[in-house]
Amino acid sequence: MPKRIAAFGEVMMRLQVPGYELLSQSNTLQYSFSGTGVNVSAALTRFGHTGYLVSTLPDHSVGDAAIAYLRKLGITASFIRRDGKYVGMYFLENGFGARASRVTYTNRLESSFNTAAADAYDFAAIAQEIDVVHFCGITLAMNDTVRSQMKAFAQAVKSAGGTVVFDCNYRPSLWGEGAYEKARPYYEDMLGLADIVMMNEKDALLTLGMSTDKQSRREQLVDLIPAVAVKYNIRAIAGTHRSINGDNTHALQGFLYKDGRFAFAEPLSFAVHDRIGAGDAYTSGIIHGETAGWAPEETVAFAAAAGMLAHTIVGDTPMSSESDIRKAMAATVSDVER
Amino acid sequence: MPKRIAAFGEVMMRLQVPGYELLSQSNTLQYSFSGTGVNVSAALTRFGHTGYLVSTLPDHSVGDAAIAYLRKLGITASFIRRDGKYVGMYFLENGFGARASRVTYTNRLESSFNTAAADAYDFAAIAQEIDVVHFCGITLAMNDTVRSQMKAFAQAVKSAGGTVVFDCNYRPSLWGEGAYEKARPYYEDMLGLADIVMMNEKDALLTLGMSTDKQSRREQLVDLIPAVAVKYNIRAIAGTHRSINGDNTHALQGFLYKDGRFAFAEPLSFAVHDRIGAGDAYTSGIIHGETAGWAPEETVAFAAAAGMLAHTIVGDTPMSSESDIRKAMAATVSDVER
Amino acid sequence: MPKRIAAFGEVMMRLQVPGYELLSQSNTLQYSFSGTGVNVSAALTRFGHTGYLVSTLPDHSVGDAAIAYLRKLGITASFIRRDGKYVGMYFLENGFGARASRVTYTNRLESSFNTAAADAYDFAAIAQEIDVVHFCGITLAMNDTVRSQMKAFAQAVKSAGGTVVFDCNYRPSLWGEGAYEKARPYYEDMLGLADIVMMNEKDALLTLGMSTDKQSRREQLVDLIPAVAVKYNIRAIAGTHRSINGDNTHALQGFLYKDGRFAFAEPLSFAVHDRIGAGDAYTSGIIHGETAGWAPEETVAFAAAAGMLAHTIVGDTPMSSESDIRKAMAATVSDVER
Amino acid sequence: MPKRIAAFGEVMMRLQVPGYELLSQSNTLQYSFSGTGVNVSAALTRFGHTGYLVSTLPDHSVGDAAIAYLRKLGITASFIRRDGKYVGMYFLENGFGARASRVTYTNRLESSFNTAAADAYDFAAIAQEIDVVHFCGITLAMNDTVRSQMKAFAQAVKSAGGTVVFDCNYRPSLWGEGAYEKARPYYEDMLGLADIVMMNEKDALLTLGMSTDKQSRREQLVDLIPAVAVKYNIRAIAGTHRSINGDNTHALQGFLYKDGRFAFAEPLSFAVHDRIGAGDAYTSGIIHGETAGWAPEETVAFAAAAGMLAHTIVGDTPMSSESDIRKAMAATVSDVER
Amino acid sequence: MPKRIAAFGEVMMRLQVPGYELLSQSNTLQYSFSGTGVNVSAALTRFGHTGYLVSTLPDHSVGDAAIAYLRKLGITASFIRRDGKYVGMYFLENGFGARASRVTYTNRLESSFNTAAADAYDFAAIAQEIDVVHFCGITLAMNDTVRSQMKAFAQAVKSAGGTVVFDCNYRPSLWGEGAYEKARPYYEDMLGLADIVMMNEKDALLTLGMSTDKQSRREQLVDLIPAVAVKYNIRAIAGTHRSINGDNTHALQGFLYKDGRFAFAEPLSFAVHDRIGAGDAYTSGIIHGETAGWAPEETVAFAAAAGMLAHTIVGDTPMSSESDIRKAMAATVSDVER
Amino acid sequence: MPKRIAAFGEVMMRLQVPGYELLSQSNTLQYSFSGTGVNVSAALTRFGHTGYLVSTLPDHSVGDAAIAYLRKLGITASFIRRDGKYVGMYFLENGFGARASRVTYTNRLESSFNTAAADAYDFAAIAQEIDVVHFCGITLAMNDTVRSQMKAFAQAVKSAGGTVVFDCNYRPSLWGEGAYEKARPYYEDMLGLADIVMMNEKDALLTLGMSTDKQSRREQLVDLIPAVAVKYNIRAIAGTHRSINGDNTHALQGFLYKDGRFAFAEPLSFAVHDRIGAGDAYTSGIIHGETAGWAPEETVAFAAAAGMLAHTIVGDTPMSSESDIRKAMAATVSDVER
Repeated sequence: MPKRIAAFGEVMMRLQVPGYELLSQSNTLQYSFSGTGVNVSAALTRFGHTGYLVSTLPDHSVGDAAIAYLRKLGITASFIRRDGKYVGMYFLENGFGARASRVTYTNRLESSFNTAAADAYDFAAIAQEIDVVHFCGITLAMNDTVRSQMKAFAQAVKSAGGTVVFDCNYRPSLWGEGAYEKARPYYEDMLGLADIVMMNEKDALLTLGMSTDKQSRREQLVDLIPAVAVKYNIRAIAGTHRSINGDNTHALQGFLYKDGRFAFAEPLSFAVHDRIGAGDAYTSGIIHGETAGWAPEETVAFAAAAGMLAHTIVGDTPMSSESDIRKAMAATVSDVER
Repeated sequence: MPKRIAAFGEVMMRLQVPGYELLSQSNTLQYSFSGTGVNVSAALTRFGHTGYLVSTLPDHSVGDAAIAYLRKLGITASFIRRDGKYVGMYFLENGFGARASRVTYTNRLESSFNTAAADAYDFAAIAQEIDVVHFCGITLAMNDTVRSQMKAFAQAVKSAGGTVVFDCNYRPSLWGEGAYEKARPYYEDMLGLADIVMMNEKDALLTLGMSTDKQSRREQLVDLIPAVAVKYNIRAIAGTHRSINGDNTHALQGFLYKDGRFAFAEPLSFAVHDRIGAGDAYTSGIIHGETAGWAPEETVAFAAAAGMLAHTIVGDTPMSSESDIRKAMAATVSDVER
Repeated sequence: MPKRIAAFGEVMMRLQVPGYELLSQSNTLQYSFSGTGVNVSAALTRFGHTGYLVSTLPDHSVGDAAIAYLRKLGITASFIRRDGKYVGMYFLENGFGARASRVTYTNRLESSFNTAAADAYDFAAIAQEIDVVHFCGITLAMNDTVRSQMKAFAQAVKSAGGTVVFDCNYRPSLWGEGAYEKARPYYEDMLGLADIVMMNEKDALLTLGMSTDKQSRREQLVDLIPAVAVKYNIRAIAGTHRSINGDNTHALQGFLYKDGRFAFAEPLSFAVHDRIGAGDAYTSGIIHGETAGWAPEETVAFAAAAGMLAHTIVGDTPMSSESDIRKAMAATVSDVER
Repeated sequence: MPKRIAAFGEVMMRLQVPGYELLSQSNTLQYSFSGTGVNVSAALTRFGHTGYLVSTLPDHSVGDAAIAYLRKLGITASFIRRDGKYVGMYFLENGFGARASRVTYTNRLESSFNTAAADAYDFAAIAQEIDVVHFCGITLAMNDTVRSQMKAFAQAVKSAGGTVVFDCNYRPSLWGEGAYEKARPYYEDMLGLADIVMMNEKDALLTLGMSTDKQSRREQLVDLIPAVAVKYNIRAIAGTHRSINGDNTHALQGFLYKDGRFAFAEPLSFAVHDRIGAGDAYTSGIIHGETAGWAPEETVAFAAAAGMLAHTIVGDTPMSSESDIRKAMAATVSDVER
Repeated sequence: MPKRIAAFGEVMMRLQVPGYELLSQSNTLQYSFSGTGVNVSAALTRFGHTGYLVSTLPDHSVGDAAIAYLRKLGITASFIRRDGKYVGMYFLENGFGARASRVTYTNRLESSFNTAAADAYDFAAIAQEIDVVHFCGITLAMNDTVRSQMKAFAQAVKSAGGTVVFDCNYRPSLWGEGAYEKARPYYEDMLGLADIVMMNEKDALLTLGMSTDKQSRREQLVDLIPAVAVKYNIRAIAGTHRSINGDNTHALQGFLYKDGRFAFAEPLSFAVHDRIGAGDAYTSGIIHGETAGWAPEETVAFAAAAGMLAHTIVGDTPMSSESDIRKAMAATVSDVER
Repeated sequence: MPKRIAAFGEVMMRLQVPGYELLSQSNTLQYSFSGTGVNVSAALTRFGHTGYLVSTLPDHSVGDAAIAYLRKLGITASFIRRDGKYVGMYFLENGFGARASRVTYTNRLESSFNTAAADAYDFAAIAQEIDVVHFCGITLAMNDTVRSQMKAFAQAVKSAGGTVVFDCNYRPSLWGEGAYEKARPYYEDMLGLADIVMMNEKDALLTLGMSTDKQSRREQLVDLIPAVAVKYNIRAIAGTHRSINGDNTHALQGFLYKDGRFAFAEPLSFAVHDRIGAGDAYTSGIIHGETAGWAPEETVAFAAAAGMLAHTIVGDTPMSSESDIRKAMAATVSDVER
């Protein structure tokens, strides 16, 4: 049964140099609007849910363009406030082979979202209208007001009987050098409120400061994740292990820990067109499977295939339907579908 | 010695989303005009033949654009009638890696070609002007009038002493579910008139309903094709086995059965830029070799290289010259030709 | 107070050659989705209303792209059915100066909208959800099923206490030669159900077969429109007189007849970037003024300015906000708004 | 009755900066292939004639692209030799209002056409296959070999009973300073062979060194053209007077002198999109009217309208059909043709 | 004799929607880098001077792209510091006819230029390397640090014997409502240091708070400017009167007050392609004439023509050479320069 | 310490078909300006040096665009003369997989550079302003005047105490069939003047006519290069061995011979986006390391990584900074740098 699912987060304008030119070579940018919340909400509308974004955008041309773009992605814009002056932006120069992609941010701390007043949103009212809410650790890195809004919103949804999803997504460049201790209490607050958490062993070790005597990533994962689930009373924890193969293809393996046991998806290896936002597709697959009550094995396989397909899609935001993903899970690749 | 070679078939307008965006992401389409007949006729003009298309296009802007495009491809347009109202169209969204390309058709049954009157063409007169004619099984799937035109044209060319080429190209989506029985009599008519046939063991098994106790594709091929040649009195039968490798490259092996024996080309493996229409390049290579009187081994190697190169060319229609193909057969790849 | 306003009609895909090239010169098309209902519904969302479209679109890539585009325009897609196989399309080649723009249609009669079953829509239920409905005479030219749907929907809205808007928009190329008699009964049905009608004296003379001994367009208008209002019991009738000036600018004068008297807008003269769909902007201005209860003089001036601005906007669909239009009414042109 | 009409001349590659940027601002060029002969030949195919070009192009990618482009324009390429190494090129930066367009040439004297051997073409054979041949004074400015080819070709067509058209088109930048005396004997040779000549009073005064005591352009024209016709025994002389209006529109009046009297077209004023090559549209209209045996008044009105429309078309080469031109002659402008 | 001319000011990134689409319609932006200082400095390099910019740009991709762009414009980048984090940006949506262009800024107060430390620049050293420096009133609106830098730089140039140019350019949207009093002292500081000032009667009335009993703009100008020159001891004051004609062309008249008398340029009327930055072309013409020691009448006519041509050029920055401008002053428009 | 480094050579205009279309399929070209000297000079400015080009460009639009482009690349244009009429150009059609890229030249022998008078440059004066000069064997293939200029410039730099770099770069298509003997004396002249030489064993065998009894490329290299160094008294000789892997990636190994011993870089294998000009990146790395006094092992590793990255950059000219290259040397590939 379709759910009403909201994400809380900033809308970023992505300004991408077309092809493989650098900013100092080109004279054209392609623009779109994204953000973790945007990506997750939009991906879930492709699976039949109603996707909302709870955010703030300025009331001018750029804000209008953002709203139009979100609507095009299928997002219901009724919880988006119009206020403030700026939209956060980032420039993207595509890498090629041995040359990595490069992201350069504008000043997102001045954005409408990050400058919205503490009481800007009526979270209690919104919580009545939704079944699930999604938060991202990137938002946690912004400022105190936004952190307090996140916590308040999570509590409101919790009180209203809804499900809280939290994606740890610790990004070192946003918190500053060795800032795990600074981030930890906010992360612990959110983990304490969350029903479903996206993370892996690195989050446990670094952000949460846990320890293990295991060496391999897999062993560390198996050692630490159950402890996290117990400590913060989390229903389900999911995440991925990623790596880049020698031929520039990527490898991805998904896991879902639930009811005391791990489900692992088959490892996938695939060519990559657009890396950014692909993790959000995996998250959306986990949320979809969990709200649908699928077996963990099905959920994690679905989420991994969703993540894989998102690497083949232009832009940050996943565009695949459930049927597209099921075809990809079936594994026989055709070259043209007529 | 160059021949006058006509193809009978519909001109389709290809509306392609640039790059790897979906139709719901982009706002721009690149258009071109193609079709099996267009592809084969144009490819053969690159080898020095005079290529005609026998078809019908509407007398308006879209028809004008189609004619201009065919002329640019080198096709002589003097046998193209201007009549009817519509041009068949298809949308192409390029796949990437794990995501297949997707084709969506408009209503081609209403096209000028598919609504031309039964007696629209003066096949007897055209047959006097050409040495070879090419037909495709896709055309056979359209309607009774078109089917009767195909048969009449083939008979006219036969009577005039010309060569009839037939490419089986059974496409299930056009005939409907399990419609082999429906298609069979029309296929048998064309096979009975054809001198050169493009097919492989699947056509024999499914479309013609033949059987074999062999298991592998190669063994089935070797078992069935000679039987087809005998049953329908066909001078030469050619085709390919294709597959997709794990790294998204394609593998292709061509064969040519003639005078009681098979010639097989070396298997080729290659990166693919544009898959559609590449089979027509293979066909054009077979026709070129057969009309030139080459040894089967040379013909099939040439056709396979032509097919390989067509995968590296933008658009449905092959663009390689005989000298381009001979360079590709020589197998040493240079990176820049100055 | 914002209203819930639905339009009933077909979504057309517009395939436009960029710049001033002809289809036989270019290789690129820009696509968008429009239609009278789309234009009116979208324009009204810019004024704060909730705009719906009641229509049918196929459940494939092209239909998905149409839905996404309509959502981007601000239209609520919840009354759009997914069924049938095709989307109506038209090609647009932009004119320049002495060379007129040229429109070439594909077969729209096969579209999902025009092939929807007679009982495809639950008009009674929809009528409960909306305050105003808009119909266009172009739809009336399609086929009997669509005509019966229009009438049924108008009756349902009427019964539910809503407002019915009908835009005569008789297009001779759709009805065939001298087909006013054929069209008349359907037009009379709709006029009998309509509260607000878009038309001018030409519709009265030709489509409705009325007569006048006046010579000038203005005199004919003043003579005939009140008679139409009485005969069909119409609350408000609005329309425009248009002409093209010698320097390729356009002249437009709007009128609104209501409560027994005419309000005329000041004649406007302006440069034109994109002519198609500008009439729908005028209609949306009339609907907005009427639902807001403005004085006729204000309504017609607003509608005329909305129409003028729509000529400066790319694409068929008006994009101006109420504040944009009020600035244009204020008449002092600035060159850059910072 | 359609004629077989050839033009003799160079194919130039036009490299145009898109929009209104300068070469030092942009990074993109649009390319096409044109030349006076190309333009006249292509324009005449639009009127139903078979248009040939007699020229030479190199046997490499650029030459292939030129041939493909000419075929797309409708030109029959069978009299185009493949030889030499280069294609003449020019860069075009579009002007806007007070800023004129700017053309920069590459070294066209090294082109395949301008370096073809004196006996490269079999003019006698070609003359058997055509009814009319067109030459342009620009070609006369190239070198001695080309000049001798022009004369030989004109004589061959004359001997074979065909019609010779010569467009004076004296371009000072090609001949050098005050080089009228240098050019005169070559012009006199061509005028002596021509049946139809494109020129006006400036050619008579400057290139031919004639004199008159009249002051206005019109009086000079009326004084000098009959004398030219008598002196060189020319059947018909046609040309235009052009000027630029204050509002950047252009004014054009065409004339045709024949059988001892002048026919003048109505003066036309119109907006201009692409100025280059529009004179060739006028020429093609004169040739069409003359070969069709129209009254001079009809011919000159048709030619002027053809010239006007060519200013609204992208690129050097006219694209209008006879029906397009007749609509433009009818003078009522519509904004959209559906 | 060429001078070394520096401008002090911010580099802005211009993000322009191509053609006439709105930000909510398009998906592509064209980017360039400009700013009053950039425009003036670049324009003067076209006249043979060495143009510098004294500014600060961040040391990342966007800053690199800005530097590369400035170098392409001909600016010597040796006085540009690399520091700070952001580049100021603005979005431009082109207007058409009745619809004005629209500019939306990002947060420029956070830019590298506006956050540079008070002592970031070694103005004394720079002053030794230049002959002329240019300042703009827009910079004055930023913050106290930038204001103190402006004053310090002007004093340093003054002390070193150089020429100080100040363009008043009061922009109300930057200072806030009715903020003339707030701005005045800073303006008076700069006027006191300036040798050449760009302004007109509005600056005198509003920014400087002067008064006159004259009514017409021309009379006010003639009344006030001499008083300004005396009060602040300014060598030369220049400016323009601008208006928009009914047909969307613009009218411009330039003046130059010097040695106690006014020189007025002929009023110019012209079509406009890109309005932004055209005033900077006028300024550059005044600076060029003044440094060259031309008569005021020549200088003002040159500056006005430079201003006119800048409206025909894509982008904010003037691109015309002295020879281009002299051609435009000669007033006969040709359509194509070959 | 940054050096002043000049390159002597022609500026070529690169006209590239976008994507993978052929010239006969597309209608658009992307243009840039390059050449070995341009590439090396620009690459060295990225490492902090001041890069000059000593060349000649015409004084018209195309020349202006070239200068602007070179400045954008960071090159100081003060040693570029404006003279002559043409810019050498080449067309580039990108290959894909089995289809090689194709380069077609225009007549570069007529270019401003190749037609400059023997005494056009004041080499003695330039030599005073620079520390290092770079020459390329391609220039040697042009004509006697250019060859004498090269020699004179090298001698002038030598006399002034500067460093001479010579890249052998023998291109058979420029010298004609089997023309090694013709080229040899000019190569020997340059080798006799050079401090640093780019070459490998093929140059020694073919161009210099040396011999060895070794079979493998590596053995031949080790055998011949020391002999070359001795014979021509060369301080350092560097070069690469390149090959194309089966999967279309390229393999590259760099070497540097100096002080009697070889340093070899680790072999690199990488995906290729744009092959042209990548060798110049290697050269620039060698020059950078040599002028910085790095150990040979460091220099050759840096140069090889610079060469690898240049294959991932659009256009002929390397764009990587020293820090980009050091990251690539560190070998761990990240997918996105934020």
